[in-house]
Amino acid sequence: MDAFEMVLLLDYYGGMLTDKQRECFDMRYNQDLSLGEIGELQGVSRQAVCDNLARTEALLRRMEENIGCVKRDMQIRKAARDILEAAAALDNISDPAVTELAKRITAAAKTLEE
Amino acid sequence: MDAFEMVLLLDYYGGMLTDKQRECFDMRYNQDLSLGEIGELQGVSRQAVCDNLARTEALLRRMEENIGCVKRDMQIRKAARDILEAAAALDNISDPAVTELAKRITAAAKTLEE
Repeated sequence: MDAFEMVLLLDYYGGMLTDKQRECFDMRYNQDLSLGEIGELQGVSRQAVCDNLARTEALLRRMEENIGCVKRDMQIRKAARDILEAAAALDNISDPAVTELAKRITAAAKTLEE
Repeated sequence: MDAFEMVLLLDYYGGMLTDKQRECFDMRYNQDLSLGEIGELQGVSRQAVCDNLARTEALLRRMEENIGCVKRDMQIRKAARDILEAAAALDNISDPAVTELAKRITAAAKTLEE
């Protein structure tokens, strides 16, 4: 299981999980606790933690497959980088009209990275 | 209930509904059938259709509240329009270097509108 991918999915879709699912997931992938440690903290068996995580992961993957926020956001960030790079190159051209337009483009492209 | 809003939510989150939910929703909001007509087609009561739609709408709204694809996409489309407008203005400046960069910016911004 790729922890980075899981944390990314949690960022986008975490709001659809129950508090308990989110807590368990956070302990596993952000705090890097073992299944046994999580079980002790939550007062459940290691197996229950394992099942809970598996269900959460399946739900997160199903959401990405059907909604595709992570994939779409990566495309947006790539486009934003391309635009910002070209706008920075425009800044080297000494024409006040160009500089003004480059500024507008940069400002709009930065909102894409938020 | 705003049909336009519902169709928009269906576009983004429809993949998370069951076939039956999606079918019922489509008949109501895309084909504009009455609850009674949908009930006849699906072989269920008008009340069952009403309940099914209410559950689907609640799920779609909960997804938008927690994931926010529609809101985010509107921001992206606004930024794309601003960028394309500024890039079009750059095209009026007769400097081949500017034209080249404006072309790159336009191409990247267009991917945002897909």
